[in-house]
Amino acid sequence: MEIAILGGTGDIGEGLALRWGRDTDHAITVGSREAERARETAADYSTRLEERGHAATVDGAANPEATADADVVVAGVPPYHVADTVEAVAESLSGVLVSPAVGMQRDEAGMHYHRPGAGSVAAVAADAAPEDVPVVGAFHPIPAHRLADLDADLGLHVPVVADDDDARETVIGLADAIEGLAGLDGGPLANAPEIEGLTPLLINLAGRNEGLSDLGVRFE
Amino acid sequence: MEIAILGGTGDIGEGLALRWGRDTDHAITVGSREAERARETAADYSTRLEERGHAATVDGAANPEATADADVVVAGVPPYHVADTVEAVAESLSGVLVSPAVGMQRDEAGMHYHRPGAGSVAAVAADAAPEDVPVVGAFHPIPAHRLADLDADLGLHVPVVADDDDARETVIGLADAIEGLAGLDGGPLANAPEIEGLTPLLINLAGRNEGLSDLGVRFE
Repeated sequence: MEIAILGGTGDIGEGLALRWGRDTDHAITVGSREAERARETAADYSTRLEERGHAATVDGAANPEATADADVVVAGVPPYHVADTVEAVAESLSGVLVSPAVGMQRDEAGMHYHRPGAGSVAAVAADAAPEDVPVVGAFHPIPAHRLADLDADLGLHVPVVADDDDARETVIGLADAIEGLAGLDGGPLANAPEIEGLTPLLINLAGRNEGLSDLGVRFE
Repeated sequence: MEIAILGGTGDIGEGLALRWGRDTDHAITVGSREAERARETAADYSTRLEERGHAATVDGAANPEATADADVVVAGVPPYHVADTVEAVAESLSGVLVSPAVGMQRDEAGMHYHRPGAGSVAAVAADAAPEDVPVVGAFHPIPAHRLADLDADLGLHVPVVADDDDARETVIGLADAIEGLAGLDGGPLANAPEIEGLTPLLINLAGRNEGLSDLGVRFE
């Protein structure tokens, strides 16, 4: 499978590229607005995987080139860049589009879910994508730094939402393929708000409870 | 400690009464709008605890009598009854008020968090309570049937929110006192929506994933 990670130089992109690079045979391409930055980052990821004895090659390209031919495209950018990032690659987008971003606002009490007018960030991505592109919400409650630390154990669940059953199954499989992650069926894309809302809760709990940091979630 | 569970004849009330009856020395009073129903239910809980060799006595009373003298009062009623239930006991309410209810709506996609205009069900409870009564949101993501089954293992986390630090610590302690539960500091009451929003997610995941039912959550 060919996987493009747009915003692949960012936190969640780094972890997904390294983990898929280590744990699968999928071809990973890091996308960025600047091709040179994408190539440098991809070379760094490849080096880090090689140093651990993994032959995986991570490629880098500008977002539209990374998107073309990709079976799965992850929009690993901040929530306020999801719409313009997806619109910028819309012409070359033919695979499944994955949205891991969460809109949040901090006040004096803590972090809060900032639900976009479209209903969810996943819905923002769906509105920006061509109509025939299946959109999947996934990887929200995964602590990015822990994901990018290949020595860290995960043992976490990944709820996955999509209207397209095949696309949802594909992404559940991509979650399962990472050692220590297990994908769960969260239902249609309209269930995205309940999943996106987990992230501010994890941040609040990690900030206030000794011994808890870089939190994920298990449903038991 | 004296604990009153208003709506103690309902699902979450049953589990809390039985577990606190088994695992602590606190005096438990089941409250209901009808005193006779409360007494019958309390007698049933006491019998079930005695059958397991626990001497705990659970008392029953009408909600206002149950509330008087209670150090902690749990509003274990459906979300649309929280305001009138709290208002009906306001004159005798002097302890900590605990809100475990969650507003939800189902559509064709699944269950969704229905956030009250006040901001959360916990905020609804706070608005209905006398100003000097500390309100605590807790016990939302605990599967009621599993809680009421004393043979069931829990192994779950209970995020707790309150503006009053002492009240929050008291309720974290009451969660910790139940075998298999661990209370977590969720911060001020303004963080209640992120916690109340867990319950519809748990219902959606339980309904769509084989082997998962009566779900709770662990933050790891």
